[in-house]
Amino acid sequence: MGRVTERRRTIRIRDGVVSARPDTLVAEEPLEIRLNGRPLAITMRTPGDDFALAAGFLVSEGVIGDGSEVQSIVYCAGATADGVNTYNVVDVKLAPGVQVPDITLERNVYTTSSCGLCGKASLDAVRTTTRHPIADTPPVRVEPELLSALPDRLRESQRVFDRTGGLHAAALFSETGELLDIREDVGRHNAVDKLVGRALTDHRLPLSRAILLVSGRASFELAQKAVMAGIPMLAAVSAPSSLAVDLAVETGLTLVGFLRGPSMNVYAGDHRIALEATVGQG
Amino acid sequence: MGRVTERRRTIRIRDGVVSARPDTLVAEEPLEIRLNGRPLAITMRTPGDDFALAAGFLVSEGVIGDGSEVQSIVYCAGATADGVNTYNVVDVKLAPGVQVPDITLERNVYTTSSCGLCGKASLDAVRTTTRHPIADTPPVRVEPELLSALPDRLRESQRVFDRTGGLHAAALFSETGELLDIREDVGRHNAVDKLVGRALTDHRLPLSRAILLVSGRASFELAQKAVMAGIPMLAAVSAPSSLAVDLAVETGLTLVGFLRGPSMNVYAGDHRIALEATVGQG
Repeated sequence: MGRVTERRRTIRIRDGVVSARPDTLVAEEPLEIRLNGRPLAITMRTPGDDFALAAGFLVSEGVIGDGSEVQSIVYCAGATADGVNTYNVVDVKLAPGVQVPDITLERNVYTTSSCGLCGKASLDAVRTTTRHPIADTPPVRVEPELLSALPDRLRESQRVFDRTGGLHAAALFSETGELLDIREDVGRHNAVDKLVGRALTDHRLPLSRAILLVSGRASFELAQKAVMAGIPMLAAVSAPSSLAVDLAVETGLTLVGFLRGPSMNVYAGDHRIALEATVGQG
Repeated sequence: MGRVTERRRTIRIRDGVVSARPDTLVAEEPLEIRLNGRPLAITMRTPGDDFALAAGFLVSEGVIGDGSEVQSIVYCAGATADGVNTYNVVDVKLAPGVQVPDITLERNVYTTSSCGLCGKASLDAVRTTTRHPIADTPPVRVEPELLSALPDRLRESQRVFDRTGGLHAAALFSETGELLDIREDVGRHNAVDKLVGRALTDHRLPLSRAILLVSGRASFELAQKAVMAGIPMLAAVSAPSSLAVDLAVETGLTLVGFLRGPSMNVYAGDHRIALEATVGQG
């Protein structure tokens, strides 16, 4: 996969000094995900790990929940006028007998309600769709100090970011702080789908002992992806949204935001974090 | 619109000290956009400026290009079982005689090609779809110093970000550096759509003398939105992607990235930037 970065001519201005030189950019290309030959969704992504991205997307959307449900994932080649394989169309064939849910996947699985569309309906859809409810047997429980160490470890492993500054990263850590996997992508939802898809094909779902760390903000969509993969803890370097917090509360997900050095905010599921001091009223 | 932020109970950890207090979060809710009564797309957005968001989305997708083509925009009320208006469904009715393009908007307008899906096809689709080709009569031309001053001006005007840390911002500036409009949203594509939609309903399209500044990275999608609105210059505080640069080169858009203090990179359309010094080979 040599298309993770591309070079383009750039004019640099630094304190009034102008120079021209090539710059390394993060690659962005469309990927069409097909299910049993039928176009399902298109995402703008950084090429690489496309099969994992497709598989993870289908986990996030509730179509599959176990590696045995996938028969094959292939690049769809030869369908262009000139027969060229662009490596931008992936077809996921489900194993015989696996039902394709009757959902309008072109839009969003969690929006099957019509004019009643609201945050609550989105939460309910995730809660009732997930194949891997978050289980506490026994509960994952980590020290704040362990969480504090994770962003630096993520940053150290971000190889492409260092060259382009243009990538979001997502990583899975064990409950002892060991880096299990890391993915980078121009879209942060893609980075998480790639992690989850890899776990699915390796038969590691649900990720019931893992911590998911994302380099940016925690939106509803990222919280949804954690829940659908059975991940009990989502930590973000930046702010969460209201709906991400609501989903975490509703599903039992631990949600940590503003994870910076020894500081962090815990928005939900604080029973998985070992808080020595008594919680006072600030 | 009182739902831009919401408060949730939070446990704060600061250097080992634990306290509980309410935290202000950016609000996130789904918005369904309907066209002539037909569901078209759903986006997770920060409530507020929803009519502008819907209108701007339709500009970005090539459905409309002028305010006269919109007959009405309304919240779709009363369709829930209990008749409640969630203010999360918006219906845009086109003026009589305005054609609805035959495109699969549920997916993406620029992906009408099938297995030939690739970056080039995406570029071609935007170039051939835009209603407002970027015109240079006379060319917008700005000093680097003017661009350098814009991010601080954006930041000063970001009211909600200061309280939540969770919002992307997009702003329109005149060619003399005057702030014309600013929008904040949990999704950066929404912030741009809100700007463009407001311009459409105010009959200010094409924005052929404006500079669009975004707080984060410049993806293909954001460059597409600039091009569809006839904006000649897109500046981003962070990195662009390869496909955003390619689209800028193809359509004549000026694309500036890493705009930080007196430093910036110009990836395309440098004829609109007054470079005093000779461009050397770095």
